[in-house]
Amino acid sequence: MDPYPSRLGESEKIVPRLDPVVYHNPATGLPCAGPLSSDQVASYECNGFLVLPSFMQGFVGPLLDEIKALQHTLHGSDKLVYEPDSYAVRTIFDPFGHSEGVRNFFQHPDVLGVAEQLLASKVHLMQSRVNVKPAFSGRSFAWHSDFETWHVEDGMPRMRALTAWIMLSDSTEHNGPLYVIPGSHKEFISCAGITGENNFKTSLRKQTLGVPTEPTMRKVLSRRRIESITGPAGTVVFHECNLLHGSPDNISADARAVLMGVFNSVENRIIMPFGARQPRPEYLCKRDAQPLRRLDMGIEIAG
Amino acid sequence: MDPYPSRLGESEKIVPRLDPVVYHNPATGLPCAGPLSSDQVASYECNGFLVLPSFMQGFVGPLLDEIKALQHTLHGSDKLVYEPDSYAVRTIFDPFGHSEGVRNFFQHPDVLGVAEQLLASKVHLMQSRVNVKPAFSGRSFAWHSDFETWHVEDGMPRMRALTAWIMLSDSTEHNGPLYVIPGSHKEFISCAGITGENNFKTSLRKQTLGVPTEPTMRKVLSRRRIESITGPAGTVVFHECNLLHGSPDNISADARAVLMGVFNSVENRIIMPFGARQPRPEYLCKRDAQPLRRLDMGIEIAG
Repeated sequence: MDPYPSRLGESEKIVPRLDPVVYHNPATGLPCAGPLSSDQVASYECNGFLVLPSFMQGFVGPLLDEIKALQHTLHGSDKLVYEPDSYAVRTIFDPFGHSEGVRNFFQHPDVLGVAEQLLASKVHLMQSRVNVKPAFSGRSFAWHSDFETWHVEDGMPRMRALTAWIMLSDSTEHNGPLYVIPGSHKEFISCAGITGENNFKTSLRKQTLGVPTEPTMRKVLSRRRIESITGPAGTVVFHECNLLHGSPDNISADARAVLMGVFNSVENRIIMPFGARQPRPEYLCKRDAQPLRRLDMGIEIAG
Repeated sequence: MDPYPSRLGESEKIVPRLDPVVYHNPATGLPCAGPLSSDQVASYECNGFLVLPSFMQGFVGPLLDEIKALQHTLHGSDKLVYEPDSYAVRTIFDPFGHSEGVRNFFQHPDVLGVAEQLLASKVHLMQSRVNVKPAFSGRSFAWHSDFETWHVEDGMPRMRALTAWIMLSDSTEHNGPLYVIPGSHKEFISCAGITGENNFKTSLRKQTLGVPTEPTMRKVLSRRRIESITGPAGTVVFHECNLLHGSPDNISADARAVLMGVFNSVENRIIMPFGARQPRPEYLCKRDAQPLRRLDMGIEIAG
């Protein structure tokens, strides 16, 4: 039976999370060793995210250059998504498939190593994207859990995935920062509605399905608080797949850009969608669970 | 000649402010005495606003009761404005004309006294309103100067006015707080366009005229920064008429409500609009410059 039913025509409800947040080494029963300290792991477990200020500052310049080039390479492709009200770029999908610099980032031992540490397994990169919230015109994003979409529309069975993202510009209180609800990853909101065919074509511009209703969000926020994720360019964030997040619009003069990638455990192989007829295209969800290899950084990496 | 031409079919430009921010006693040439310290006056002069945390906390409960009643009294009237996408109340106009509690607030010596101190004259209440930014659905407001509108559409000749407002709910980083640009009151943005008839009927829902363009805002923000005005319910803010402000949308579960009133110097009598054929209705701009009297608080008030 599906432990996380959603958009199957039932009414909305909050159900318990049945999966660990931090997975343990099956041999020892203990958390895995890796780049994060045990305090950092505990904070991730409790809050559902971890912010490492300026962690990968050296990557920002080269990544921006590669992404600028990608906007031309991918012009006219489905991999480019625009803002609802203008033709400013909002999202570039699958930069991993098109850029060596992007691959270098996600295969860096300090990034990939964290994903493997928290999920206690090899991982594959299910999705990569660049999100830009343009100055003045960047629109808000409604509260949602990524896992809900991945489960219903892609076929991710359990909560054993996380998003790693790097800020490509400063993220401040005023340029439409990501809002998260710490601790919200510990319950699952089973949404109402039924997913239509090709829902993803409109949902990437403005999400309406898989968005909890106001009464439910009021209930969640009566017990929890909102936190803005801010930091200088180069800050890296690890963000649990079921953490509720959203963001306000950007009326500042500063665009906000991030590169994000979804690490899914190879033990959590993507199967058929739990609430849609057809899986989404490969650029939204790579179904190939080939484990990602750490880049050899010039030293021997164990493992 | 009009020192602040705007929306007269010319192209947009930034021009110097020609008026003082803090007016001086004409007899002595010095700032006036009043409830504010000289440091507070200097901060207002420099930034264009002043925040007094929890200044009038005792007023919050009674004001909320009166305002709740007003929503029924004024049902169906032009004085109630709704959100663009829903029928949630966004603004109530002229609460001063309908509520004793509101009059008590604006005629309180500590509130009215500040206005008289900064403007160095008797003042009249040109406009009063309640603004509500509803939870989840509260929309954003574009950058603008109130003076620009009052000058063009109402006929306020010079910059000798300020808005006093009290937070009727907590204002946080996350419930669509007012963003201001400290120091922006020291220059005037002369806007392009021409004001159509009855522009106010739509502009109160979504402003399009009198809104500086993105290149101009980019120029302003290359030299200045955005600041959020936050504080607990009962916080009072004094806000210079030409300060640029705006606000992002509210995706939190907490509505944000304020009561605001515009104090205009009786020496700055409202004449004919500088850029519109007809003045706006009285509930948007009281043209009667009858000086506001301080409430006798049970003690003798000098002056």
